[in-house]
Amino acid sequence: MTAEIISIGTELLLGHIVNTNTAFLSQKLAEIGIDVYHSSVVGDNPQRLTDSLNLALRRADVVITTGGLGPTVDDITIETIAKFTGKKLVLNRMVLKDLEGYFKLRRIKIPAATMRQAYTPEGVRCVRNKVGIAPGLLIDWKNKVIICLPGPPRELEPIFTNDILPLLKNKSKSSCIIKSRIIKIAGLPESVVNKMVKGLLELKPPLTVGIYAKLGQVELKIMSKAGDEKTAAAAIGRIEKKIRSKLNDSIFGCDDETLEGAVGKILTERKLTIAVAESCTGGLLCNRLTDVDGSSKYMIMGLVAYSNTAKENVLGVSKETLKNYGAVSREVALEMAQRIKLLGGTDIAVGITGIAGPAGGTKSKPVGLVYVAIAADKKKVVKEFRFKGSREEIKLQASQAALDLVRKSLKKCAHL
Amino acid sequence: MTAEIISIGTELLLGHIVNTNTAFLSQKLAEIGIDVYHSSVVGDNPQRLTDSLNLALRRADVVITTGGLGPTVDDITIETIAKFTGKKLVLNRMVLKDLEGYFKLRRIKIPAATMRQAYTPEGVRCVRNKVGIAPGLLIDWKNKVIICLPGPPRELEPIFTNDILPLLKNKSKSSCIIKSRIIKIAGLPESVVNKMVKGLLELKPPLTVGIYAKLGQVELKIMSKAGDEKTAAAAIGRIEKKIRSKLNDSIFGCDDETLEGAVGKILTERKLTIAVAESCTGGLLCNRLTDVDGSSKYMIMGLVAYSNTAKENVLGVSKETLKNYGAVSREVALEMAQRIKLLGGTDIAVGITGIAGPAGGTKSKPVGLVYVAIAADKKKVVKEFRFKGSREEIKLQASQAALDLVRKSLKKCAHL
Repeated sequence: MTAEIISIGTELLLGHIVNTNTAFLSQKLAEIGIDVYHSSVVGDNPQRLTDSLNLALRRADVVITTGGLGPTVDDITIETIAKFTGKKLVLNRMVLKDLEGYFKLRRIKIPAATMRQAYTPEGVRCVRNKVGIAPGLLIDWKNKVIICLPGPPRELEPIFTNDILPLLKNKSKSSCIIKSRIIKIAGLPESVVNKMVKGLLELKPPLTVGIYAKLGQVELKIMSKAGDEKTAAAAIGRIEKKIRSKLNDSIFGCDDETLEGAVGKILTERKLTIAVAESCTGGLLCNRLTDVDGSSKYMIMGLVAYSNTAKENVLGVSKETLKNYGAVSREVALEMAQRIKLLGGTDIAVGITGIAGPAGGTKSKPVGLVYVAIAADKKKVVKEFRFKGSREEIKLQASQAALDLVRKSLKKCAHL
Repeated sequence: MTAEIISIGTELLLGHIVNTNTAFLSQKLAEIGIDVYHSSVVGDNPQRLTDSLNLALRRADVVITTGGLGPTVDDITIETIAKFTGKKLVLNRMVLKDLEGYFKLRRIKIPAATMRQAYTPEGVRCVRNKVGIAPGLLIDWKNKVIICLPGPPRELEPIFTNDILPLLKNKSKSSCIIKSRIIKIAGLPESVVNKMVKGLLELKPPLTVGIYAKLGQVELKIMSKAGDEKTAAAAIGRIEKKIRSKLNDSIFGCDDETLEGAVGKILTERKLTIAVAESCTGGLLCNRLTDVDGSSKYMIMGLVAYSNTAKENVLGVSKETLKNYGAVSREVALEMAQRIKLLGGTDIAVGITGIAGPAGGTKSKPVGLVYVAIAADKKKVVKEFRFKGSREEIKLQASQAALDLVRKSLKKCAHL
């Protein structure tokens, strides 16, 4: 069984709102094994909607429309679909009753325009909207199904998940479901990951692996289509094992896990504390570390030593090091880490210095040059990075590199 | 002139990512009077992409594709379009040079698969991608234009805005344009703003005002459709004046301006410096302040005093204040601001303490309770806030409140 999604609304075509409904519906449909090969957006225009319906119903078994169910003149979905399917609009007692209840609760008289919403094509099945007014509609037509959903996500999502999805699952008899798992990698560029798992990326359904590059991390998404959950999960497990054998410690987590969460987990497990001295990242590293629930257990302090005065007077980096090597240098990064470790009395500490740009770069020290240092009792590391991008992108990549260096240092050393 | 957008990528059809490119492109096209009547999404499938191109090119003058330009096997846009238009793929020296530069900078050998990206259909115009690898392509075909853009928004957006849009504007000679302006407000809830500008929200096209509530700020979007830029701008100007007369100092900026940018602008203009001591926001305030280009002029230092030890030993908040009032109190917030002002030697300083949750709340000091203090030579302010939401949402609202308090303090005082 295949489905197609038509999002209706001139506000979408004008780019006033981002279409999140299509992503939501697509994901839910994939999970129950219904394929979506096309989705489209069309304005509040009866002729163009009719054309889109025609095309979609030629290609798919189920066509889901979103939006255009409201009371205003530019809400044309119901009329257009009634005309398209040759069904008369009739007063729908259930919808009318819900509508009366909705306005009674709010102690408002039903606006005249809203009464239009009580008319639905004859013979349709209605699904109650518990959040708003417009119900979901299911219209059987020539062995196919047209499903109309309201546009606001907080109305569409419960209607679809609770009422439509079980019906579709039943109808599709898709003896198949889709499970997925995202494997997250830091410290390697997409091209290198691509090379390492090349064979897996060429897999064809029902078991596929996709590669997605994000700023400072690469994600591999394993998708498995199978007759039941257990089989799907087992197939994913096999691929995950292969990926792990190739990428090992470059993998920091799965699905919703973050790099700061992964670092937090290791620190918590090993009852270690951390402190951070940042310059070019300007607080981003601290901010990410403290985004994690329970980070107060390990995060002692951070110093954003943005000026040389702060580096020297508050952090205590030596005047000589600053003078001899410059604020952006291996030596300063390391001293920043060592000094903040001392000030915070922590087990491990990070120092970051670099040039986030857009100004401040020179030929020998260009924008994007960043040094990250790690200091622990028995360990010190300094690494040089050269990032590209906007100020915010360089900050993000630098914080990502620092978190990954902390993670790898902790992984490598049983004793700091 | 009409345009159509085809977003290419199975990850979009599976709902793994939300399609923000279509909204971005639609908005930019509307601004120069190019109508978009349809947009669609299709997977990484040559036949279905060919069908979609065929349909789009029948309906529109310009077809813009996004995505599928990468080095992996499922990136099929270029090959499919070459075949569709009957153009041969040839080595593009400009693209090859950029590609070599990209990898040289990163000190990585060019992966074999990436070399594919140096081949483009013969006779195309290329637009440099300064952020990533894949360039933008313009392909003339039967009096129409096919434009191929890379999928990642941070690559697509600058290519489209800087290079493609001026070309299209020139070509379209449209007789009507849409201009818009966003007025940004902090420190007032949506319901209050709504009431203050109620009459304006009821305006009908060609001149409308919409209200959008975001976390910690409210936005009013003025839209004006007119025959020329001057008329549209004048209409917007009239409405903006009315909004400003009602909301005054609650407005911190317009369009792309941020609250941290507004604060930075005042500090720069008045040649003032700032320092920050944060607890519950964990570095977010510093991070936002240093997101602004040129912030090193005014941002001296920040201290993320997450533990009491850091508050006491490094920042120097008195043991008595901590003991008598607790870490989350007006008194500690103020001492944090005063102490960091002293350490940084700045004109103004901020102290923030609170409970970001989800744990750590008590009946008298619940999750979401935040104190923000401002200290200057002749001025001190402490304000209490009670925010709701997740840990990250509370951090964001607290940083927003702090920035707004700095902004208003600076606005009110000619002399700190």
